[in-house]
Amino acid sequence: MSSYVNRQILLASRPEGEPTAANFKLVEKPVPALNEGQVLVRHHYLSLDPYMRGRMNDSKSYAEPQPLNEVMIGGTVGEVVESKNPHFKAGDKVLGMGGWQEYTVVDANQRGVLQKVDTTHIPLSAYLGPVGMPGVTGWYGLVRIIEPKAGQTVVVSAASGAVGGVVGQLAKERGCRAVGIAGGPDKCRYVTEELGFDACIDYKQHRDLKSLSAALKEATPDGIDGYFENVGGMVLDAVMLRMNAFGRMAFCGMISGYNGEPIPMANPQMILVSRLKLQGFIVSEHMDAWPEALKELGTLVATGKLKYRETIANGIAEAPEAFLGLLKGKNFGKQLVKLV
Amino acid sequence: MSSYVNRQILLASRPEGEPTAANFKLVEKPVPALNEGQVLVRHHYLSLDPYMRGRMNDSKSYAEPQPLNEVMIGGTVGEVVESKNPHFKAGDKVLGMGGWQEYTVVDANQRGVLQKVDTTHIPLSAYLGPVGMPGVTGWYGLVRIIEPKAGQTVVVSAASGAVGGVVGQLAKERGCRAVGIAGGPDKCRYVTEELGFDACIDYKQHRDLKSLSAALKEATPDGIDGYFENVGGMVLDAVMLRMNAFGRMAFCGMISGYNGEPIPMANPQMILVSRLKLQGFIVSEHMDAWPEALKELGTLVATGKLKYRETIANGIAEAPEAFLGLLKGKNFGKQLVKLV
Repeated sequence: MSSYVNRQILLASRPEGEPTAANFKLVEKPVPALNEGQVLVRHHYLSLDPYMRGRMNDSKSYAEPQPLNEVMIGGTVGEVVESKNPHFKAGDKVLGMGGWQEYTVVDANQRGVLQKVDTTHIPLSAYLGPVGMPGVTGWYGLVRIIEPKAGQTVVVSAASGAVGGVVGQLAKERGCRAVGIAGGPDKCRYVTEELGFDACIDYKQHRDLKSLSAALKEATPDGIDGYFENVGGMVLDAVMLRMNAFGRMAFCGMISGYNGEPIPMANPQMILVSRLKLQGFIVSEHMDAWPEALKELGTLVATGKLKYRETIANGIAEAPEAFLGLLKGKNFGKQLVKLV
Repeated sequence: MSSYVNRQILLASRPEGEPTAANFKLVEKPVPALNEGQVLVRHHYLSLDPYMRGRMNDSKSYAEPQPLNEVMIGGTVGEVVESKNPHFKAGDKVLGMGGWQEYTVVDANQRGVLQKVDTTHIPLSAYLGPVGMPGVTGWYGLVRIIEPKAGQTVVVSAASGAVGGVVGQLAKERGCRAVGIAGGPDKCRYVTEELGFDACIDYKQHRDLKSLSAALKEATPDGIDGYFENVGGMVLDAVMLRMNAFGRMAFCGMISGYNGEPIPMANPQMILVSRLKLQGFIVSEHMDAWPEALKELGTLVATGKLKYRETIANGIAEAPEAFLGLLKGKNFGKQLVKLV
């Protein structure tokens, strides 16, 4: 037994509809002593991401449900505090899937479970954002599915988020017109002024399809060639009607349906009429793309060309509320929980 | 002026909802004398195809609407009766887009408007079916979009039709399990017994999603890897829930929505959950694929390995009723109109 006390957030129950704080439970547990090959990591940041909402359900999806009464899964960055593994030493900065807790004991001989990261030019937290899973997600959907060409128009929903912001900026790098969709004037201003998108539509100003379609038409005078889908619902319907022939749509998330609401696609005929390609993807299934993606993303972050913003909650006890806020769009950019 | 009288069917008015015979008009016109370079073709068969329904509307689609008071477009096979073009002579069997009429005068110098066909081993009418546009449509969606692998399961709707029958037989050729969806016991029996599909579901026996889903589950014990979409609506919804991870769906038609009925896709979340690829296509935009497709299809038809059936109406005056029947699924296999 070590002298460390580990505070953890467990999934206490599955949500019926919208999740609440009561679905989570904070517990304290002593950190066990290390066995040979193991490493003790103290987490500096926990990443909160929309995909976690899906894991809370007990339904068929691309991943196993999060088990009840176990530590919520999640990406973490931190520092090695003790090591019985020759490949790691105290002080190493590392990236892993440590979950919603302050410490993890990692069997670090398993390849890939713990990765050293270099914080000389890239802040530690960025490995959970633009130089991590959200960044590679944006990169993969844009580069491998949308395959944008200079002069084309790319639209991304949840544009101020950790993924969406990367999509638009990478599209601009490739000579495209980048148009965001986000909730509220502050987020839209950030998307255009800080992230450099050409336009951003505040979906909260448009309560019906006709109004949203008119705004989209104005923002995309040449139609839409690529769409990066994070939300579903009416936004998707409006975009589909505006897609150019041979348009590509990368399906990354459909947050508007995460609580089980029906979110039918109104006009699937457009798939045929406009000869669209729609493709869903999970970035963890395309590890072969990560090195190329991280090389571009890392360079852009290190040189200050790729902008991003973080919303940071303090302390593991705040994780549930921060996560519930994320699902409601209260965060601004990447949602993190700072643990030290 | 030649001595031939040409009977033609014009689009007289656009349908409001379901089309009727009143949308068409039969007229007679003398055939003009040939100019240099022109060829007079007497049509033996006119092809009737679901895509024509879309052209009758005045709405945005992949092709221009059929103009009012002009001859309905359509594929035709026939025989050259007079020629003022050195590349064609009387007696040549030819394929073209002659439309709903008995004769056409073709400016045969335009490359591709008129193609000589060889009827030594392949019946003339087959060039409007399995060795023509419907066949290549099935080939392209299956081979280029679904990309089936041996052992996988491919499902096709409108399975007894000119396109669907090809899809399933080509899937069988590639070592797949082929499952059809068709309307009525006779069509289903034909699909399994004559065309050699492994199973066929009679959608008319299933009036709700639950019932259809249960039948689909039974017919596809290993799930569905590829789906060739011809109908839309509830059939599409049921199939999407049964798709395996990384499944591919080729969107060729959505006949259930051709009269303007809303046909929402109930669960677009499945695109993400199952990481599906959905792709719409129009075979005439992929002319590069035709030679390879026609080579395989021609060989299979000439050797009797690819089975097909024709429903033949007699005389140009019967074309409207035959077309309306096609839209209601009254045809069995390829719908043709015999003109000589």
